[in-house]
Amino acid sequence: MCVSRAVLPLILRAMRYLDYAATTPVLPEVTDAMVAVLTGDFGNPSSVHAYGRAAREIVEDARDRVASAVGASPAEIVFTAGGTEADNLAIKGATRKLRGNGNHVITTAFEHHAVLDTVEWLGHDEFETTVLPVGPDGLVDPAAVAAAVRPSTILVSIMAVNNEIGTAQPLAEIARAVKGANPSTLVHTDAVQMLGNLPVNVHELGLDFAAFSAHKFGGPKGVGFLFARSHAPVEALLHGGGHEGGLRSGTLNVPGLAGLGVAAEIAAKEVDHKIERVGGLRTRLWQGIEDSIERVRLNGHPTERVPGTLNVSFEGADGETLLLLFDAAGIACSAGSACQSGAIDPSHVLLAIGVPREIAKGSVRFSLGRESTDEDVDAVLEVLPGIVESARRVG
Amino acid sequence: MCVSRAVLPLILRAMRYLDYAATTPVLPEVTDAMVAVLTGDFGNPSSVHAYGRAAREIVEDARDRVASAVGASPAEIVFTAGGTEADNLAIKGATRKLRGNGNHVITTAFEHHAVLDTVEWLGHDEFETTVLPVGPDGLVDPAAVAAAVRPSTILVSIMAVNNEIGTAQPLAEIARAVKGANPSTLVHTDAVQMLGNLPVNVHELGLDFAAFSAHKFGGPKGVGFLFARSHAPVEALLHGGGHEGGLRSGTLNVPGLAGLGVAAEIAAKEVDHKIERVGGLRTRLWQGIEDSIERVRLNGHPTERVPGTLNVSFEGADGETLLLLFDAAGIACSAGSACQSGAIDPSHVLLAIGVPREIAKGSVRFSLGRESTDEDVDAVLEVLPGIVESARRVG
Repeated sequence: MCVSRAVLPLILRAMRYLDYAATTPVLPEVTDAMVAVLTGDFGNPSSVHAYGRAAREIVEDARDRVASAVGASPAEIVFTAGGTEADNLAIKGATRKLRGNGNHVITTAFEHHAVLDTVEWLGHDEFETTVLPVGPDGLVDPAAVAAAVRPSTILVSIMAVNNEIGTAQPLAEIARAVKGANPSTLVHTDAVQMLGNLPVNVHELGLDFAAFSAHKFGGPKGVGFLFARSHAPVEALLHGGGHEGGLRSGTLNVPGLAGLGVAAEIAAKEVDHKIERVGGLRTRLWQGIEDSIERVRLNGHPTERVPGTLNVSFEGADGETLLLLFDAAGIACSAGSACQSGAIDPSHVLLAIGVPREIAKGSVRFSLGRESTDEDVDAVLEVLPGIVESARRVG
Repeated sequence: MCVSRAVLPLILRAMRYLDYAATTPVLPEVTDAMVAVLTGDFGNPSSVHAYGRAAREIVEDARDRVASAVGASPAEIVFTAGGTEADNLAIKGATRKLRGNGNHVITTAFEHHAVLDTVEWLGHDEFETTVLPVGPDGLVDPAAVAAAVRPSTILVSIMAVNNEIGTAQPLAEIARAVKGANPSTLVHTDAVQMLGNLPVNVHELGLDFAAFSAHKFGGPKGVGFLFARSHAPVEALLHGGGHEGGLRSGTLNVPGLAGLGVAAEIAAKEVDHKIERVGGLRTRLWQGIEDSIERVRLNGHPTERVPGTLNVSFEGADGETLLLLFDAAGIACSAGSACQSGAIDPSHVLLAIGVPREIAKGSVRFSLGRESTDEDVDAVLEVLPGIVESARRVG
């Protein structure tokens, strides 16, 4: 084990974490539930003996909790390895199942790559795709969606909450508009940033599919789920033992699902309190930024948003420089989404809502969450003027 | 929490576990590694800040350990949610990439469903498939594989170790025979039952792809990996953030991968000892069965097999009845593979090696592993005559 490995935990404890939209700390209750499974209930839920029965019971208990957290019935929950797989399953699975009915798919320009890249992939495969623009406030217009729906439109995929700017879409209105234009068009949403940040009831929202990921609401990485409305047409992506009603083969991640179930239940239970408390912290952070820094802009609608996420452009500064300076100052935040390559291109989300390229490049996402404190906000506001000044100086 | 949930742990501790081929207990070292990540290193490995760097370091440390355990280089490891996803990725990903070069795929009749169902799925999608027969000893004949290879054969998928009967294939000879017949044909193996049971060196074996699953060798459920030889042609199944070199998008399962790395390292290190010790237990179990019960047969080759797995047919008995009686007697074993539906059809593996349908239905798989003891073997041998007699009486 190298030195940095031993030192990093110390660094980590000394830092301020403002990147909850990238991932969240695992709740102690979640770790406890997982450890109980890892140490005690190691059975394969597909086995018929007592070990298998115990594992199966844990899985079904998790399914009940998850279903209840999003207003679904347990049979409508398909467990996956995370939000990306759930998005892929809905989009590829539904279009494959319905390819005889039409060849048109609609999405928006500011989706997460799990949706955008998947829809683009469909485009190589005989599907026509419409990528709708997004308004400057980061909202999708239900009427514009309805106008894009054709008789051949088999699926519309529009994210519930944008991961970079935090705007919450009028999802129920969008779903209603789609069904009004074509009752047989299916509606999917990437709801990865929704659970724990907003109340969720998939049936009241009128959705056919919705993707969720445990690690965005206090659960472990590597596990998520797709809500697939009863009888919603969809084909499996992974073939094998026929698990999850034939929709997702592969031995179930029993410890991860135990953690997911606990996390989903807590997320749903605490959401009102979180909206109030974390929303208050975010408001204070934005007011502090606006009061102390010139030439800043808040990206996305001022109120139609989740409590914790704040995306700010600092004109004349470079986002990568800002991030490095924040990191050095002990503050973890991000430039848009967690970026695989480390290279920071201007965010496709900010470009989609009309932020000029140069300003988009100088943007930072601060995202607060369940464990965030007033001191976290104070810490950012304290170092912010110096960091922005330095970043603007180097250009 | 219902009563059975509280009682089951007690039942479990009182039972004898002889179903290691279905899944294995999680090693304490694995749980420790996972708990360290769950409680300390919650960062998203795609983030650029210190939390992200710490998570990335854990992931790459796991990749090094896994690569070393199977004789690959770290860049040849693609992390997945398990063996089924790894099989699907290799088979669908390689055939999609190479569909311009040919349309023929070869597999065998006794593969795991993760391979068999996936190849069958290809068959609906313009591919021609050849399903080779298997010898009565449970071995695949390299010459027969070579004879089936055509100029249009783009992939051969043959499992390393059969999950139900435990026979180990002459994998290096098979790969050599395939490449001799058509150098551009790719060779994939479902190696899920191999790591920890036999020494593994993917390059010495001459493989292009090999699928592995952590929970088969003391790691957690929900995580596995595909070995994909450098430059082996393959396309992603899951699209999104472009993780894993673009081959498998989705936030990495950091705690699971930490556990996988530790488990793979231990599995590789202990394999020689395990072959000797667990192989000895299996031999004693078979001898005990043969000495005490009439009309039994060992399924699969007597010596070309992994140490722990023993598949026995009890003529005149019903497998489901046997399993229920073993379960009631506190012994967990299985009828072939872990069966999703709970319904027990005659095993496709046993039928493939020529076991008559009626005899196949009376078969039980006992699989021993790292924690198995002489007492486990004694416990089975003690109750076996009574159980077989009862099962034969009810027919």
